[in-house]
Formats: sequence, structure tokens, C-alpha cells
Amino acid sequence: MADAPLVGIIMGSKSDLPVMEDCERQLDELGVPHETIIASAHRNPEKVHEWSATAADRGIKVIIAAAGKAAHLGGVVAAFTPLPVIAVPMKTSDLGGLDSLLSMVQMPTGVPVATVAIGGAKNAAILATQILGTSMTQYRDAIIDYKKKMAE
Amino acid sequence: MADAPLVGIIMGSKSDLPVMEDCERQLDELGVPHETIIASAHRNPEKVHEWSATAADRGIKVIIAAAGKAAHLGGVVAAFTPLPVIAVPMKTSDLGGLDSLLSMVQMPTGVPVATVAIGGAKNAAILATQILGTSMTQYRDAIIDYKKKMAE
Amino acid sequence: MADAPLVGIIMGSKSDLPVMEDCERQLDELGVPHETIIASAHRNPEKVHEWSATAADRGIKVIIAAAGKAAHLGGVVAAFTPLPVIAVPMKTSDLGGLDSLLSMVQMPTGVPVATVAIGGAKNAAILATQILGTSMTQYRDAIIDYKKKMAE
Amino acid sequence: MADAPLVGIIMGSKSDLPVMEDCERQLDELGVPHETIIASAHRNPEKVHEWSATAADRGIKVIIAAAGKAAHLGGVVAAFTPLPVIAVPMKTSDLGGLDSLLSMVQMPTGVPVATVAIGGAKNAAILATQILGTSMTQYRDAIIDYKKKMAE
Amino acid sequence: MADAPLVGIIMGSKSDLPVMEDCERQLDELGVPHETIIASAHRNPEKVHEWSATAADRGIKVIIAAAGKAAHLGGVVAAFTPLPVIAVPMKTSDLGGLDSLLSMVQMPTGVPVATVAIGGAKNAAILATQILGTSMTQYRDAIIDYKKKMAE
Amino acid sequence: MADAPLVGIIMGSKSDLPVMEDCERQLDELGVPHETIIASAHRNPEKVHEWSATAADRGIKVIIAAAGKAAHLGGVVAAFTPLPVIAVPMKTSDLGGLDSLLSMVQMPTGVPVATVAIGGAKNAAILATQILGTSMTQYRDAIIDYKKKMAE
Amino acid sequence: MADAPLVGIIMGSKSDLPVMEDCERQLDELGVPHETIIASAHRNPEKVHEWSATAADRGIKVIIAAAGKAAHLGGVVAAFTPLPVIAVPMKTSDLGGLDSLLSMVQMPTGVPVATVAIGGAKNAAILATQILGTSMTQYRDAIIDYKKKMAE
Amino acid sequence: MADAPLVGIIMGSKSDLPVMEDCERQLDELGVPHETIIASAHRNPEKVHEWSATAADRGIKVIIAAAGKAAHLGGVVAAFTPLPVIAVPMKTSDLGGLDSLLSMVQMPTGVPVATVAIGGAKNAAILATQILGTSMTQYRDAIIDYKKKMAE
Repeated sequence: MADAPLVGIIMGSKSDLPVMEDCERQLDELGVPHETIIASAHRNPEKVHEWSATAADRGIKVIIAAAGKAAHLGGVVAAFTPLPVIAVPMKTSDLGGLDSLLSMVQMPTGVPVATVAIGGAKNAAILATQILGTSMTQYRDAIIDYKKKMAE
Repeated sequence: MADAPLVGIIMGSKSDLPVMEDCERQLDELGVPHETIIASAHRNPEKVHEWSATAADRGIKVIIAAAGKAAHLGGVVAAFTPLPVIAVPMKTSDLGGLDSLLSMVQMPTGVPVATVAIGGAKNAAILATQILGTSMTQYRDAIIDYKKKMAE
Repeated sequence: MADAPLVGIIMGSKSDLPVMEDCERQLDELGVPHETIIASAHRNPEKVHEWSATAADRGIKVIIAAAGKAAHLGGVVAAFTPLPVIAVPMKTSDLGGLDSLLSMVQMPTGVPVATVAIGGAKNAAILATQILGTSMTQYRDAIIDYKKKMAE
Repeated sequence: MADAPLVGIIMGSKSDLPVMEDCERQLDELGVPHETIIASAHRNPEKVHEWSATAADRGIKVIIAAAGKAAHLGGVVAAFTPLPVIAVPMKTSDLGGLDSLLSMVQMPTGVPVATVAIGGAKNAAILATQILGTSMTQYRDAIIDYKKKMAE
Repeated sequence: MADAPLVGIIMGSKSDLPVMEDCERQLDELGVPHETIIASAHRNPEKVHEWSATAADRGIKVIIAAAGKAAHLGGVVAAFTPLPVIAVPMKTSDLGGLDSLLSMVQMPTGVPVATVAIGGAKNAAILATQILGTSMTQYRDAIIDYKKKMAE
Repeated sequence: MADAPLVGIIMGSKSDLPVMEDCERQLDELGVPHETIIASAHRNPEKVHEWSATAADRGIKVIIAAAGKAAHLGGVVAAFTPLPVIAVPMKTSDLGGLDSLLSMVQMPTGVPVATVAIGGAKNAAILATQILGTSMTQYRDAIIDYKKKMAE
Repeated sequence: MADAPLVGIIMGSKSDLPVMEDCERQLDELGVPHETIIASAHRNPEKVHEWSATAADRGIKVIIAAAGKAAHLGGVVAAFTPLPVIAVPMKTSDLGGLDSLLSMVQMPTGVPVATVAIGGAKNAAILATQILGTSMTQYRDAIIDYKKKMAE
Repeated sequence: MADAPLVGIIMGSKSDLPVMEDCERQLDELGVPHETIIASAHRNPEKVHEWSATAADRGIKVIIAAAGKAAHLGGVVAAFTPLPVIAVPMKTSDLGGLDSLLSMVQMPTGVPVATVAIGGAKNAAILATQILGTSMTQYRDAIIDYKKKMAE
């Protein structure tokens, strides 16, 4: 993808990739340039810190963070960036993803993350595009088109 | 507020107002012009439909929807607008807000809502401002300032 | 089915059909004419609105709405019709259907939906027939027969 | 109330009365004649059996059953009558009513109960009136009026 | 089994049989004569009533009731007998048996059921034998033996 | 109480006493001699061990164990006695008693505890009396009387 | 406290202090020198990073981290230190602390936190002292004394 | 393993072994000598008591206890030793391990157990090594190495 990425996708583990490829594909379909990184808030905190703190300066407008279990990634990223952060809670084999969901959505005052459904990789892409669409007509139009096709 | 509103707040019931005034105050502090409407997805569906479908044309960039129990408001609004919709699940007296949370965050593919914590009125305001900040420097700066003050 | 439908079945997604065919079969067994439509509260809101608002005038007496996850369909239909609306929460792969259930049953004051068990497609058909049986003897009798057979 | 009751309200315990008076008042407002009985499925099984089995013959069209904790009342009543049974799960002090809700809504195949929200006494009344409205115009009109007033 | 049954097993559905055969086998191993009946509290209320009300007179000392979902069977049986009733909540495919468990264990004051673990068929047999052992030495001894073997 | 105790009550903490006094009173009303001890499975394991292992020899027929949070008391007592053990899960201030309930009822194969409702102190007394009634007519009669009074 | 601190307490918000003072008091009673800092993983990430990364070099042996809601603090601290980290999930007003608990205990492979009960401030102190006691006799003895007093 | 074990692993059932072998392997990788025993708190209480009460004297520094369902093992072990006890809640087939988790983590005041994630066998090993590392440099270094490798 030639264009500079507008959406940065970060996920906590390689095992999240099969789910998050739906997110990448949806962004591709909507014409949104994106980049992806795999880095854990707990295993690679410095890498997450560095990537998050520089995202805005690299031209990223929206971040999508996917993680499972005690899913701190969205909150940790949000601590280091003024950009909006969308969180995708991963389904877990024991608690079905309720742990991931609560770990992401229940953020304390001051540092929100925009949480979508458990496993909601495609919806994260659509939400990111809606956010881009608040200022860039082509993405507003892409969403309007998408909604029309979906209704048919 | 003299400026045309950029954020539209909708809540399902007058009883949500005391909580959502924190959202309004936070937007005021961050300098974001906003409007508020009380309309239920179930009791005033036409009003919700009309308000949601025209929000973008009125210059609204982001919508914040607050509701409790079987909280359909966020999803119903999102069905009628290409704008990003932030959902605030209200605490409930019996299930603590787990019902509101799941009714909002578990949106099916195609129509995301950006859910914040149960009762997360202030965080909804901050998230809305972050979204505005993706294209308007003054709101990016307002968030950066806010984060600095918070850290002290 | 030659007779005008008395029960209208609406479901949010084609993927709900295998479960809801049990509902159709049960209505057939009980001799209740019915119609089915697939339309999502979020993807096809206008279609849902139109279908719901005209159901009573088309002779429909009872509506059955099936949906999963943040299952708003029952509530959205109920907003547009004075008819009783029965809701079938679909089982979900992550939370087992607790999300669908709470999204349907916890309706706020003024707009009830009559919720049956997670995946309770047959029970929705029986409940619809019981409602018809409050005024039409043939359906009262069909229920009495059904209960007798079941007891054997 | 001079007219023969069309709705029979049964509740498991005198302690449910303060909540269920909202149900009675709502039926009164909608002009629906009703009767009330307090009888527990566990403490007075014969009384519940007798009342349920004779309700249809006494002219009752819809039953509303309210109970808390392991709330068997709705199911027990439904076992003895071909009438539609609406269940109101009572809020509980320890589990918030999740126990009452699951005990009511998760009915096995063959014997549905139409469950409304935890503490949804008013909604039970509205749903009962909607059911009556499937054959009696005055109740259909009462619901249409109620929905109009609510929308204002 | 030549001896008159001391334990009566009742289950709500034929589908509970594979699980409950573990209960029968465990009673056999412990030397406890038993009888089994399949009858649903909702589909065969009269049969359940009759069987429960006469159990004590037939020489039954302890009842074991197994059911799933909105599992009313234990409570309904307990309403008709002064005997101790042990309840086995069946695992369910959607909520894992939490519904069965809460429907059984949360019995209101006055009518307890002795609830064992979800799917705890063997434990129900052991508990029944412990109860018999309070007055019959052979069953006390059988339990002591069982515990010894288990410890090895 | 002059008679040798037939029921032994054990509770994990002095703070359980106000709730468990309902159990003692109910046993008194039913004429069942009982003894009470306060001892924690975690803080006084030797005392619990000693008391449990000697209960049967002291003439105790049934044990009632009450505890909250990670409520191991019932299981620990059951490990040391062939007597039936009734468990009363205490309500907790954070999770409402769901923790106490699951810690008690989900006992692994081989060592059942007969669990009653969260806070079900009176029901534990009634269940204990029902167990005594399996061999002692006076307690069978006491239960039959109790059920009659309750029905009135 | 003259001695260099062996236990470092960190909490996410000043509002956690009343609960965590029980932790400090318990450490004082057990004679364990400690230090306390208030810093949020989301609002002061750099401060948390700095404090955690230097704790071992300052002589701290065990860290206790307390936080509520989406409680990332324990995990974030654990990412920056080889020391054992004990996590205290704070009770929350809506979900009772289930959110805090799951956010802390469900840590992914590689970065454990030792989680104690919701609101378990005193137990965190005791656990920290047990850990110190693995190498320092005075703390082993303090625990043995504590257990003896508790048993009385 | 020639060295005297520093970590004692105890599990409630042979069926926990496949999961707990990950714990043993992780300890091996980190160079920590360990021993393993299978003994149930309910089926072999004396064995658990004996093993726990003598662990410290045998040179064990940290105990890891794994169990499922009403998982009392961690608490029962902790009652008999001044050593720190790490608890691993096993996943269960019905409630996903929520029962095991709450039975372990919600320990009452005075007797903590350090709970890790459901199925967190490897993390238990790492936490045990971190505890040993508070006094033995080789284990501190092993953890620092492990964290470095993990980050790559």
C-alpha cells in the first residue's frame, strides 16, 4: 500500500492475527491505508510505548488495539497518545472473552478506549473509517456506500 | 454556546441527565461545542431517527448516546448515520449495568458503536474530543493539555 | 399457506434461519399461518420500521423477533407497533447468548417484549399460538391438544 | 372493579406486592379489569394449581406471575393453563435478580413463559394489554394512546 | 433389585438419562435400592405431583431430582413431600448450567432443596446414601468404605 | 437445651452469626437439639478437623456449615465425616455471594455438600430436620406441620 | 520508618487509599518496612514505568499494586520488574469488582501477577510478608506468630 | 533432579496433570528444582495436611496448588504452612473455570493465596521463580533472562 498509513493496528500476540486479518481486509475494502504491529503491553512494554508515543507524528489518525484475557493493550496505548484508540477484546477459551471485554471497556476516567464487540475486528475497521470520515470526505462516502450495500 | 455544535449528545431518559451532565461539563472544559437531546429509541423512535439521520448535515461530527438496561439507543442511532457513535452504558439498579454494557458493546458486524465504561460520561466527552482532534488541531491540543494536567 | 398470516416472524440475520425454522415448523403443526422476513434493526432500519408499522394493518396479530448479540430487533419492532412482540435471543459463540438475552428482556418501561429462552424458537411459536388462543378457539384447542400430547 | 377480570396476577410472596402494585395501577390506567392472588408455587402448590387450572374458565385471558430467587411460579402456572403467562422476575438482594430472571426465562421446550425485565411490573401490564388488544379494539386503542402519550 | 427402593430419582427429560445413569450406578455400588421416573414439572405436572406426594408412603426416604435450564423440578417435588430433596442441575449448552444451578439452589424460605454441583450425578447418590446413613448403619459403613477407597 | 445435639452448626466467622441465628431459631421451633461452633477452615484448621471427625461419634446426625467468599468450610468438614453436610453460602459485599455459592456447590466427585440458597439459614434448618425425619417420626411430623402452617 | 522499604505499594488512585491503609497497617504490625506511591498506569505511565523499573535496585523485594475497573496497574508494573507483583482488585460500584479482578488475574503467559481477593488489602500485606519470609527468618516468624494469634 | 526441591507442586486430581506439566517444564527451564504430589483436599485431607505442614521443614520455599471447581486446595494448604501459596484455578467444562477462580482468589482475611489466571500453569512457575529471586540471585537472573527472550 503506497499511501502513508492512517490507521495503526496493534495486537498483543501473533495468535490474534487470524481474527485481526478481518480488520485489515475491511480497511482495504474501505480504501484506508494501515500498518500492523504485534507487541504485547506486558512482554514488550518499551516497544508498545515507543510505537504509541510516535504514532501521531507518523501521521496515524486512529489506533486499533486487539488483545485477550487481562487485555491491557488498549489502555496502555491510550496512555501514550492523544489519538482515539479502538479496542477489540479477543474471545478467550475459558471465559468467552468477558475478561478481555471488561479489561478494555471499564477504563477509568481520563483515558477512554472505544471498545467494540468481542472479536469485533471488522467493526473496529468500520469505526476507524467513520472517525476518518469526520474530516475526509472519501471515507465518509466509503461508509455511506458500505451501509447501502449492507442494506441490500 | 455560540459555535455550531460538533458533538451531539442523545440520552434515552431524563433520568440519565445527572450522569450525562458530567459529559457536557467535560466537553465545555475542552472547548467543544455540543447539543443535547433526550429521546428514547423505544418511546420516540421517529424523533431518534430524524435527529440521527440529519446530524451529519447539521455539522455534527460525533454522536454520544447514553442509555440503560436493554440499551438500544447507540445501535439505533448508528443505523441512521455515517458518523462515529460513542455509547455510554448506564448503571442499572439490578444488574449493575452489565445489561446496558452488553446491549451496547456487542453490536453485530457492520454497525459498530464505540463503547466506554459503565457510567463513563466524562470519558465519552474525552473520546469525542480525541476524534475531533484527528483533524482539528485545537482539539488535539486540548487533549494533550488535559493529559498533562491529569498526570500532575 | 393460503390463509393470511397471523404471526409475523422477523429475524436479524440469515444465520438465524436454521434455528428459527423450528419456530415455523411449530406454527405449521399448530395450524397457524405465518410470514417470515429477514431484516436487521441496524443494517435495514427502514425496512424493519416499515414492516413493523404496517404489520397490524396487514392482519398480523403477534410478532416474533429473533436476533443475537446486542439484540435490538425486538425492541425496535415493538417501538413501531401496538402488537405484542415475542423475542427469541440467539445463542452466541462467546457469551452463550447472555448478551442477546439481556439486550432483549431488560426493556425499559413502556415498551415490553415477551422474551423466551435463549434459542427458544419452538416456545416462541407456542406462546404466539397461546396469544391467538385468547380470542380464537381453534388455537386455544390446538394448545390444549399440544399439551396433552406432550404429557404422554 | 365491576367488570369480570381479564388479567389474573399471581405473586409468590406478599413482599412482591409493593412492586406489583405498579402493575395493577398500569392495568387500571389502561382500563383492564384484573384480579390478584398471592400464592407460592412451593408453599401453596395446590392453591396455585387450582387457580391456574380454572383461570381460563373464569374468563381470564392472560396471566401475570411475579416471583423472585428460584422463581418457579411462572412455569408452574403455565403447566396448568393454555393461557399465555407473563413472568416478572423480582430483583433479589444478593444476585440482583439474575437468579429470578434465569429461573423464569430459560423455560424448556413446550411450556413458554413471556418474560419481561427484572422488576418490570408496568411492562407486564402493558404486554397483557397488547395481548388483549389482538382481539379487543378498546385495548388496542388503549395501547396506541399510551404510546402516543409516552412519545410526548 | 429385590429390595423396596429407598431413593427415588426423578428427571425432567429423557435427555438427562445418560448423566443420571452415573447416579444409578453409584447407588448400586453403595448398595442402595432405588427407582427412577422421567417426568417434567412443566409437561407432566400431575404425574410429578402424584409421584412426589406418595413417595414417603411408598417407603422412599430421599428424592433426587435432576433438571436443566429453568430447572423447577426440585422445587416442585419439594412442595409435595416432607422428604429431603437433592437437586442435580444439568449442564446447558448456552449458559453452561448456571441457569439450572440458580433455578435450583436459590429456593425461597420454607422449601429447601439440597443442591449439588452442575452435573453432579454421582455426588447426589453419595449424599443420598449419607442421609440414609444417619439411621441405617449399613449405609454409614458404605460411605466410610467409599471414602477409604477414594483416599487410596 | 437438655437433649444431646443432633445437628451441629459450624460457621467460619463470628460475622456469620447474625444470619445463622435464624438457623438456630428455626431448629428450636422444629424441636431439634443443636450445637454451634465458630471455626474457620483456614484460620483454625485443626479445630475444624477435630470437630468434624468426632461429630458422628458425639451423636450428631447432620452438619450445617456456613461460610462466605472462598467458602471452603463445607468441603473441609465433609472431608472428615461420613455425615451429610449442608452448606449455607454467605452473601458477600462485592459479588453478592456468587463466590460463596460456587465455592460450596461445585464440589468435586466423591465429597458432596448439600448447598442451599445464598443466606439460606432457615432453609438449612428445615433441610436438616427433613433428613432427621427420614428415621425419626417426630421430625417428619414437625416438617409436615411446618408445611401446613406455611400454606395457610 | 527508619529501615529501607522492602515492600513497595502502588495504587492507581487516591480513592484507593482508605482501603490500602489496611495493607500498610498490616505490614506495620508484621514489622515490614514499606513505601507507598499513588500513580495511575493510564494517567502517569512514565512515573509508573520509572518507579517499577527501579524498585529492585532500591532494595524493594515485593510490589503490591492496587487498582479498580480496567485494572492494568499490576500488569504494567510487572512488565517493568523482575520482582513478584501482588495485585489487589478494588471493589467497583457497578460490577462489584469483577471487572478489577478479571483485569488483574487473567494475565497472559509470561507476566504473572499474584492476585488476592477483591479488596484484599490485608491479605496482600500477609502474602508479601510470606514472600519475604522465604529468605528472612524474622518474617517467617512473624507469619507463624500471626497465624497462631489468628487461631485463638 | 539432584537438588533438593524449592517449589512444591500439589494438584487435586490426576486429570490436572496435563495442564500442570507446563508448570513443571517452565520450572525446569528456569532451573528451579521442584517436587510434585497429587492429593485432593477433600479425598485425601490428611495427606494434604501432612505434606503442607512439613513442606517448609523439607526446604520447600514456595507452594503451587492447582485444582478445579470448588477449588479448596490452595486455601487448605495455606492453612497449614507459613509459605507463600500460589493457586492455579483449573478450567471447568461447565462454568469455564469461574468457579475455580472465585474459590481460590476470594480467600478471607488472614490466609491469602496468590492466584494466577485460569489454567495459568506456566505463570505459576514464573511467579514462584520471582519469589525465589527475592533472595537467590540465580533466579532473579533467570527471570531477567526470561523476560529478555520473551521481548524478542
